[in-house]
Amino acid sequence: MTAFAKTDRNRITRLAKRGHYDRATINHILDEALVCHVGFVEQHQPYVLPINFARLGATIVMHGSKTSRLLTHIAAGHPVCVEVTLVDGLVLARSVFHHSINYRSVVLFGTGHLVEADSDKLAALSAMMEQLIPGRWQAARQPTQQELNATSVVAIPIDHASAKIRRGPPGDDPADAAWPLWAGVLPLQVQALAPVPDTRMPVDVGVPEYLTNYARNKKD
Amino acid sequence: MTAFAKTDRNRITRLAKRGHYDRATINHILDEALVCHVGFVEQHQPYVLPINFARLGATIVMHGSKTSRLLTHIAAGHPVCVEVTLVDGLVLARSVFHHSINYRSVVLFGTGHLVEADSDKLAALSAMMEQLIPGRWQAARQPTQQELNATSVVAIPIDHASAKIRRGPPGDDPADAAWPLWAGVLPLQVQALAPVPDTRMPVDVGVPEYLTNYARNKKD
Repeated sequence: MTAFAKTDRNRITRLAKRGHYDRATINHILDEALVCHVGFVEQHQPYVLPINFARLGATIVMHGSKTSRLLTHIAAGHPVCVEVTLVDGLVLARSVFHHSINYRSVVLFGTGHLVEADSDKLAALSAMMEQLIPGRWQAARQPTQQELNATSVVAIPIDHASAKIRRGPPGDDPADAAWPLWAGVLPLQVQALAPVPDTRMPVDVGVPEYLTNYARNKKD
Repeated sequence: MTAFAKTDRNRITRLAKRGHYDRATINHILDEALVCHVGFVEQHQPYVLPINFARLGATIVMHGSKTSRLLTHIAAGHPVCVEVTLVDGLVLARSVFHHSINYRSVVLFGTGHLVEADSDKLAALSAMMEQLIPGRWQAARQPTQQELNATSVVAIPIDHASAKIRRGPPGDDPADAAWPLWAGVLPLQVQALAPVPDTRMPVDVGVPEYLTNYARNKKD
């Protein structure tokens, strides 16, 4: 299945032309994100918490402490909503009214479960690290059995999902075109600064290439 | 009141030492964010949607179309959760287990209402633009009455809030200190690229200073 069906849950109603339902578009946005925002309900009260994650096929995986309230809630099979937003730029129009943000967002729905087998937990943990720092998992000291036991991993198969994207220049009214004001887009991106070494590290350990060339924008 | 009381709703339970309840810390994080993530409940289903916003004192304001499902829901006075996360860096430990993210996040709770008076709507819209692009509101063509009428503005007084912050180097086990691997922090920040002018603009309109010097990190 290359696209999600439109349902009452995932349908883009406002500015429907910005809506996308194909898996390639949705996956690309998910894979570029550093964190996601998980919505859940406890006693009729909505909560949203940020957490890092990875996509494994059509499933979202997350990890945390055995005592994490969020993971315990997800593992119990309550419905959750996962949202990801990448801000690509500020859209400056002549009119206040037409200012906007260029962004790519995904909203998805599913119910989660605990990942129990050690091999599945390791696959999920590895994917989460690769999502943040490709190349790091192989280099780092692998989890001990005790560390693995202390880590909860949950998986949320994606039941419904949609993406919403705004790109391009401002949509000013033609009557405003002559307004004497700079208009256009200020692109924004996540930028890595110089790595800050841990002070306890021997000085002769080099900075790995996956850090010196770190870029968040994934290539198609 | 300079701090929020800890309640069952806003208390940081996991890694409590990372929790902050003072308004200065919370406000600073809110004011640096480009978008927030609003959690709400419809028919027991959690939803999370991204939207831009501003903080006006102890109130969050948002705007959108009169037909926006999110704004209609907020205006009806349902409880909502608003979450904001700033990712400050990737924390690279020697062990897989101690990898982390440096971040500053806020989770707040409240119930919203429609902002009805034109003067209050304009104050909120101006604050939202200043949150994104300080200096822009004054320069742009002001809203017509028709545009103002087409815009819904909602306000959410902050009832409960807390911040969670991780800073600093990795927390490796002492036994791993000699692991022959670079460890430390890769700082990340939101970076503006060269402004992209709208093609319909006369060539002699200069790029305003608030764009050439655009920086997202607000100074204390």
